[in-house]
Amino acid sequence: MSESNKIKPRTLPGFMELLPNEQILFNKMKDTIKESYEESGFIPINTPIIEDANVLLAKAGGETEKQIYRFTKGENDLALRFDLTVPLAKYVTEYYDKLSFPFRRYQIGKVYRGEKPQRGRYREFYQCDIDIIGDGKLSIINDAEIPSIIYNTFKKLGFDDFTICINNRKIFNGFFKSLDLSDKSQDILRVIDKIDKIGKDKVKEELSKEVDNNSLEMIMKFLSIDGNNQEKINQLESLDVKDEIFQEGLNDLKLILKYIGDFGVPEQNIKLDLTIARGLDYYTGTVYETFLNKYRNMGSVCSGGRYDNLTEYYTNRKMPGVGISIGLSRLFFQLIDNNIISADNESISKVIILSMTDDYGYCANVASILRENGVKVQVNFEDQKLGKKFKYADNIKVEYAIIIGDDEVQNNKISLKNMKTGEQQIINIEEALKLLK
Amino acid sequence: MSESNKIKPRTLPGFMELLPNEQILFNKMKDTIKESYEESGFIPINTPIIEDANVLLAKAGGETEKQIYRFTKGENDLALRFDLTVPLAKYVTEYYDKLSFPFRRYQIGKVYRGEKPQRGRYREFYQCDIDIIGDGKLSIINDAEIPSIIYNTFKKLGFDDFTICINNRKIFNGFFKSLDLSDKSQDILRVIDKIDKIGKDKVKEELSKEVDNNSLEMIMKFLSIDGNNQEKINQLESLDVKDEIFQEGLNDLKLILKYIGDFGVPEQNIKLDLTIARGLDYYTGTVYETFLNKYRNMGSVCSGGRYDNLTEYYTNRKMPGVGISIGLSRLFFQLIDNNIISADNESISKVIILSMTDDYGYCANVASILRENGVKVQVNFEDQKLGKKFKYADNIKVEYAIIIGDDEVQNNKISLKNMKTGEQQIINIEEALKLLK
Repeated sequence: MSESNKIKPRTLPGFMELLPNEQILFNKMKDTIKESYEESGFIPINTPIIEDANVLLAKAGGETEKQIYRFTKGENDLALRFDLTVPLAKYVTEYYDKLSFPFRRYQIGKVYRGEKPQRGRYREFYQCDIDIIGDGKLSIINDAEIPSIIYNTFKKLGFDDFTICINNRKIFNGFFKSLDLSDKSQDILRVIDKIDKIGKDKVKEELSKEVDNNSLEMIMKFLSIDGNNQEKINQLESLDVKDEIFQEGLNDLKLILKYIGDFGVPEQNIKLDLTIARGLDYYTGTVYETFLNKYRNMGSVCSGGRYDNLTEYYTNRKMPGVGISIGLSRLFFQLIDNNIISADNESISKVIILSMTDDYGYCANVASILRENGVKVQVNFEDQKLGKKFKYADNIKVEYAIIIGDDEVQNNKISLKNMKTGEQQIINIEEALKLLK
Repeated sequence: MSESNKIKPRTLPGFMELLPNEQILFNKMKDTIKESYEESGFIPINTPIIEDANVLLAKAGGETEKQIYRFTKGENDLALRFDLTVPLAKYVTEYYDKLSFPFRRYQIGKVYRGEKPQRGRYREFYQCDIDIIGDGKLSIINDAEIPSIIYNTFKKLGFDDFTICINNRKIFNGFFKSLDLSDKSQDILRVIDKIDKIGKDKVKEELSKEVDNNSLEMIMKFLSIDGNNQEKINQLESLDVKDEIFQEGLNDLKLILKYIGDFGVPEQNIKLDLTIARGLDYYTGTVYETFLNKYRNMGSVCSGGRYDNLTEYYTNRKMPGVGISIGLSRLFFQLIDNNIISADNESISKVIILSMTDDYGYCANVASILRENGVKVQVNFEDQKLGKKFKYADNIKVEYAIIIGDDEVQNNKISLKNMKTGEQQIINIEEALKLLK
């Protein structure tokens, strides 16, 4: 085949494909999240990436429909999952009789959205989800446990300076209902959302076109709520809103804030933030967003909330739930891009054996003994000069190189070189084991 | 929404979807394979599931073309990967300048083939691959290391009684070339492959229609080669085949058998098996198949081999390699189906905390302390009777339940129940930690 007949290999735009050192770091983060989820007793499920399009799109519409990868194969109308929540709804309905509720599951997997590719926005990306699904009802204390799992997970990922923002949609909804403004709430929220950009006065001016003076007064009072979590609660109470939904939301928030500390979350990592509302209509109570304080511009790195009914499109059975999701691909991109993490020195192997003898058996034996003892060992038997082999060892970032030439074989020793310090010593395999384990 | 408007949730036929306890076991196996691959210094890559159809199908044809999931989105002609080898070829060509060779990678991921669904045959299934790719050339010693990785992996998976069968395609090819039968080799192999079914005499009879007497004599002599590995080598040598390819294959085999033991593989787990040829034309030298001796009917559980040129459809650069693949989804199905493994008692959590008090804070605190100490803990705060909570604990197969009622809160204690023995004791949290860690 001549070069002209070759097909140019390429990876599609919008699809993350990492170099090995980056992949090692990515996998470490993925494993850390998995460990954290399992530590809190969540069990894994792994649903197919391809589903029946009608099942997957039962509740979708608008943007989702446009973005979805949908195609036919034979007579089947198929689609790739665009999140892990719809497959969960399918799963708990399909296997209801075989599951125990509350059903606590995690799923870490790729999802697909045919968005316009942008820097850090992928068409194939990892979501790392946990959800707790109740059968008929689900205790509000679960909403206090979830932030502790966010906290533990980000701590394990190496972060300290982050804030878990918490709110309850019922507060907003009940507040607007009490002002008889439920119909206009979407418009009002849209104005309020601009507060960081245009300032409080301009928001007030715009709102004055929408609502009467009394309501405007109340909304501005609501927007000026400030202080620490307890102070905000006090101010919410002093608004004296006569609405059941509002009071429910407020009581839920108070309960969650009360117990969140018992779950091990320090006060400085939790913030009652009345401005977060979470775009998805989907959430009906508690909502969470998580920010790295020094990198607030990255947006929320872990979001979620409480929903009344996960499975309404599949069954009349009521299944409330609460959950969160970490968009790992995007998070990883942002952390690398902002130099918050670096994959430069990532490696799988601790040691590489560089064979400089034709007695491959001795080298193989050393590799075998180290591996039996749990040391990650790579071998290099290629017919290359030592310099080239050291270059290779450098490139793959191993800590140690074991050089085995004819002398080492004859004396039943190995040469162990510390790749950082350059220090090299001739020792026997037992001594090496002690050093490397 | 009334029941009649509901969409019936279903998982597509041919797509494996496991219950949580099965999923836990499946994941354990997947993690074991990953650990084993990493122990031998293989590094992870994770290529997209969706690729440019033309890139993916560069070398495909026939069955592959028919089975592939191919579709368009916008202007893009897309396809789902059907194995992990073609994406590897793409990857090493695309990132050649940034990789170090020999490039040792593993990839564990789902692949897609729209086959007719059958028991234990899936349309979406996991492959667990390792490959060592050389730049221009690759030492034959790598072919001796690969069986040691198969051996270590299946040992770690809990198997002892398995055989790694090894052969070299050059032996067959050279043998037929020396008889001037290269053109007919496919037909002859097809007859030979029936030997287990129809017997040696019938094979001889059928072959007599294809080849002359001298060749028939040689082929039957070849087929009668028997004994232990060394005896087979001796008989191959005594055939005195005057063909370079044959001698190359024989020398490679001798070398591999010589060093395989140094890599820690016991003699009884390795068998030179001249009957395995591996369907894929693709392999050009060493080939491997692995059988669980008591379940030979399951077919090979880990196969692979050496190939001359991985990337020929993408570049003129020559990239020889050697690798293996474990078809984990199928293997898992077979192991469960044959009662070789059971997922009945699989669980993530070691302990469940059953709250029988309204003082949720105390329960949350106990959970938090245990989790900090690495104990996997689930909580149950639901408003349920103790009996129902114990049933739940039974279902999720935890080892211990911690019951916390008002008495325990008051005395700063917990009730710890061993779910197997039924033994229950009231102790403090420090004592519990010692027991549970």
